[in-house]
Amino acid sequence: MELPSKLLENAVNEISQLPGIGKRTALRLVLHLLRQPVEQSEDLANALLKVRGEIKYCSGCHNISDKEICQICENPGRDKSLVCVVEDVRDVMAIENTGTYKGIYHVLGGKINPIEGIGPSQLNIVSLVEKVKSNDVKEVIFALSSTMEGDTTIFYIYKQIKDYNVKTSTIARGIAVGDELEYADEVTLGRSLQHRIPYEQSLNQL
Amino acid sequence: MELPSKLLENAVNEISQLPGIGKRTALRLVLHLLRQPVEQSEDLANALLKVRGEIKYCSGCHNISDKEICQICENPGRDKSLVCVVEDVRDVMAIENTGTYKGIYHVLGGKINPIEGIGPSQLNIVSLVEKVKSNDVKEVIFALSSTMEGDTTIFYIYKQIKDYNVKTSTIARGIAVGDELEYADEVTLGRSLQHRIPYEQSLNQL
Repeated sequence: MELPSKLLENAVNEISQLPGIGKRTALRLVLHLLRQPVEQSEDLANALLKVRGEIKYCSGCHNISDKEICQICENPGRDKSLVCVVEDVRDVMAIENTGTYKGIYHVLGGKINPIEGIGPSQLNIVSLVEKVKSNDVKEVIFALSSTMEGDTTIFYIYKQIKDYNVKTSTIARGIAVGDELEYADEVTLGRSLQHRIPYEQSLNQL
Repeated sequence: MELPSKLLENAVNEISQLPGIGKRTALRLVLHLLRQPVEQSEDLANALLKVRGEIKYCSGCHNISDKEICQICENPGRDKSLVCVVEDVRDVMAIENTGTYKGIYHVLGGKINPIEGIGPSQLNIVSLVEKVKSNDVKEVIFALSSTMEGDTTIFYIYKQIKDYNVKTSTIARGIAVGDELEYADEVTLGRSLQHRIPYEQSLNQL
């Protein structure tokens, strides 16, 4: 794709470095910005600079936060002995939306992924192990996606904390509420049979 | 979607104003930038500011250009009496890629679209009419997509230049090379029959 302007080419190249955005989409976005008032581009650029330069992470759980301690960690009503380990802020938001979890979180900031060059040292694992060592934690819940990377990350952390006085658990895998059995994959269906629960218990969850 | 940080929310809101990007995709893009070196965000922001603030348009054809006159307009080998009217720089690039067009372009910068509030005065139409009036143009080729907006724009321009000594034409509509007849829509197939060409002529185009 040969563009008639270096400025345009530069902008297209920068935008197309974002995940899921190719050169054509990048060009469409730049042409859109060129048709909008100059303020829109300025606001966008400033928002990007500000969020990258000034973003803070909660010193307790490493979640994104505007303050030193995030709202969840500073809430006295949350159970500090129950720690849910997640990948990033999106998972925290998803679990908070269920309204059923009363513990705190620990945000890893990613998953171990040798192909993308992400090792354990780039994730917030040391501080999690320290928390467990300090004996304040009764249970660690692993809420990572069950992919190769997720399972590797869980196993790596598990090995480091298993000798301490702490319970570990992973979220239940099973058929999603409302889903048809016939479309479920075999692994999920198999696990949902294996980890079946008493019917009376399921009634209480309605 | 309630985000735990104002900075994050601001960045997500700005990005999701771009066409085709929703809040979830915007959040994914911001989280990606947060994991990359700060330079990537700076380069992106600077490229956006620079392209919006310093972009120039060719004084001849209104195409994006780094110079006062674009490479196509200043090329003495191009036929200045043949003007191809297109929507934006992407169409110029597409036609240039065919390697078959030796005239010049006139970039409108959009199509008449009352729903999006784009009227004729926001497009580069006056300068096209002036070009025709000055008698330097022998033929105007309309190369706009055949949508409601494209057809309206063509008809608006046609009415303003039809009384001058100029030929007008539109690009051929028909079955794309390599396409199967059975999957073509009726309008396109109908037009391709109506505007059939002598077989000998098609042989010369191979």
